[in-house]
Amino acid sequence: MGTFSASGLYSTIGRHYTLAEQIVVLRLGHRIPRDLRVTTHVCLTARAFGADGLILADVVDTALEKTILDVRQRFGGNFWIRMGEPWRKTVKEWRSKGGEIAHLTAYGMPLPEAMEAIRASPSPKLVVVGAEKVPGEVFEVATWNVAVTNQPISEVSALALFLDRYFEGKQFSMEFENAEMKIVPSARGKKVVNLTKRGD
Amino acid sequence: MGTFSASGLYSTIGRHYTLAEQIVVLRLGHRIPRDLRVTTHVCLTARAFGADGLILADVVDTALEKTILDVRQRFGGNFWIRMGEPWRKTVKEWRSKGGEIAHLTAYGMPLPEAMEAIRASPSPKLVVVGAEKVPGEVFEVATWNVAVTNQPISEVSALALFLDRYFEGKQFSMEFENAEMKIVPSARGKKVVNLTKRGD
Repeated sequence: MGTFSASGLYSTIGRHYTLAEQIVVLRLGHRIPRDLRVTTHVCLTARAFGADGLILADVVDTALEKTILDVRQRFGGNFWIRMGEPWRKTVKEWRSKGGEIAHLTAYGMPLPEAMEAIRASPSPKLVVVGAEKVPGEVFEVATWNVAVTNQPISEVSALALFLDRYFEGKQFSMEFENAEMKIVPSARGKKVVNLTKRGD
Repeated sequence: MGTFSASGLYSTIGRHYTLAEQIVVLRLGHRIPRDLRVTTHVCLTARAFGADGLILADVVDTALEKTILDVRQRFGGNFWIRMGEPWRKTVKEWRSKGGEIAHLTAYGMPLPEAMEAIRASPSPKLVVVGAEKVPGEVFEVATWNVAVTNQPISEVSALALFLDRYFEGKQFSMEFENAEMKIVPSARGKKVVNLTKRGD
């Protein structure tokens, strides 16, 4: 299969992305403006839990883009967002490059069982999360259909648990490059360091 | 401190709840209709990850109530929802009964550090999750201010990780009583068993 290269596959909104990806989230079924808040939560969770970027299928939502790029500007890191491409095209290209697909659905195999095989594979992973119903075709194209409990939950918490298990909790020790500000953990209150003023 | 009794404290919408609680979620700052979807995700995550119930502070949202009671009807369990009480009253009563409060905030102490003390305490826990900004007072009344990463994420994924660590992954083996239907894990497609037809 060789090295996975994302060049040509991604053009990040705001800047071009050229590094090989390990985990990218594909968000299906986003409706404007109904899903703005939930998809924002999906993006923020993806970013904070170690995903490289998110592809919003089929639609362009400039309000979402603005929110996420603003968070990246302030809190750092390289999380990118890309929008408007038909999801079948994204999936086809991902697979043609040797990438694999984990679709999060309450109907899938339990995460604790599925995760062993997923982590054992070195291929980049496209993690598919839908808003409400997803096309039946998604269950077929997925390498794995994965359930974060077989109960109705939320694509936000499903993604959080998937990434937590995939990266074995790395989100708690991640650092984000080029941040303008950083929260300092406190027992009480809010403590924020402004990094742009450092060394002036 | 004695045994924690929730009687008199909770009257579940739909039926009266009398058992002692271990984990109850308090949702602050819910706005109608803006937060319906996100708060629904908070409720579903709370239910599926082992919380006993959720208190929606200050407002009554009948659309939310309907959605959550419908899920309970179909998928079982005793998850309850209670609405409209001022949050200060809820907090005061909770503390007066010997309960403790974990407030989830990006400004708090890292979950992996905080969790040891939280799990070591036998008292019932009120887990506070806000929508956007919460009153500064909440940071003061909390027993613990807990950060699920010090990054902007989502109260949905914060709650998911908190409950996952608190219950040590019990959400993957939980069974819900009196369910009408149950999802059967599948590698492909959707498999659901209708439990109401069993034994007829």
